[in-house]
Amino acid sequence: MTHPFSALPDAEPGCVLCTQASGVPLWQDDARRVIRAEDADFPAFYRVIARHHVAEFSALLAPERARCMDIVCRIERVLVEQLRPTKINLAALGNVVPHLHWHVIARFDWDSHFPQPIWGARQREVAGGPLARLPLSLQDLDACVVDALRSRD
Amino acid sequence: MTHPFSALPDAEPGCVLCTQASGVPLWQDDARRVIRAEDADFPAFYRVIARHHVAEFSALLAPERARCMDIVCRIERVLVEQLRPTKINLAALGNVVPHLHWHVIARFDWDSHFPQPIWGARQREVAGGPLARLPLSLQDLDACVVDALRSRD
Repeated sequence: MTHPFSALPDAEPGCVLCTQASGVPLWQDDARRVIRAEDADFPAFYRVIARHHVAEFSALLAPERARCMDIVCRIERVLVEQLRPTKINLAALGNVVPHLHWHVIARFDWDSHFPQPIWGARQREVAGGPLARLPLSLQDLDACVVDALRSRD
Repeated sequence: MTHPFSALPDAEPGCVLCTQASGVPLWQDDARRVIRAEDADFPAFYRVIARHHVAEFSALLAPERARCMDIVCRIERVLVEQLRPTKINLAALGNVVPHLHWHVIARFDWDSHFPQPIWGARQREVAGGPLARLPLSLQDLDACVVDALRSRD
C-alpha cells in the first residue's frame, strides 16, 4: 500500500518520504507518522517517520529527539509484550532515502534471517510463513500500537 | 583489541559485553562505555555500550534513554562535522549479543557497501582503503569524540 502524505512547507523535492510512504498508516502527530511496513519476512515491522525533511537524528532538538524515542519505545514495548520476540531491532539508516525514519522490528530466533540483521543473508525458510507464528493478527497488533501511541502522557 | 570491563553486580554470566569489549576504549560514565569499533571497511564506527545488562532500549528509564541518545548524538555530530559523511547510520540490534549497544557509523557514497547497510551485500572495493579517504586520522577523530563527550552539560 502506498498512501499520500500532506507535504509540509519544508518538503524536499523528490524525497519520497516527504510526500508519501508505503505501508499501513497508523498514527501521526505534528512531527511524526507511524506506519507498519508490509514485509513478508518481518511482519511485525513498524516505522516512525519524521514529517519534516531532516536527514540525521542529531538535527532534531533535544525535546524532539526525546519525543521521537518515546514513540519508538512505545512501539517496542508493545512488540515485546504482545509477541515476546527474541530481540527488538532499532535502526535509523536512511542511505537510500535520507529522510529520518526509525525502523522498529520484532525479531525471532526462527525468522528468515536471525541472528543476521534483516539486511543480511537469509538463513532459512520459515515453514508456513512468519505470520502464522505470531500469537495475534497484525490488525490486533496494530490496534495495540495505536492504543500505546494515543495514550501518550 | 579486546579489553576487560569491570563487571557490575548485575553482570549476566556468559555475556561478553558485561565483561569485555573489542575496540578502542574512549570514554565511560556510570552507565555507558564508548569504544571505536575496529572495522576495516568502516573506520568511523563507534559503539555506545550499556554497562548494565539490559537487552532492550525500552528497558531503560526515560532519563537514561535521554542520556544514552545524547551520547549517540554527540558522536553523530562529531562525525558529521569532521567527516561530512553521506549519511550516519544508527542501530541497536543485539541479535548476537543481547546487551544494549548502539552503533554509530559514518557512511560514504564511496564506501564498500553504500547504499546497502553495513550488514548487506558488498558493492565495491575501495581503492587504497577507506582510511585514506578520511580527512583526519582516527586518533584525531577519537580525540574529537572524547572532547564532545567530556563537554557534556
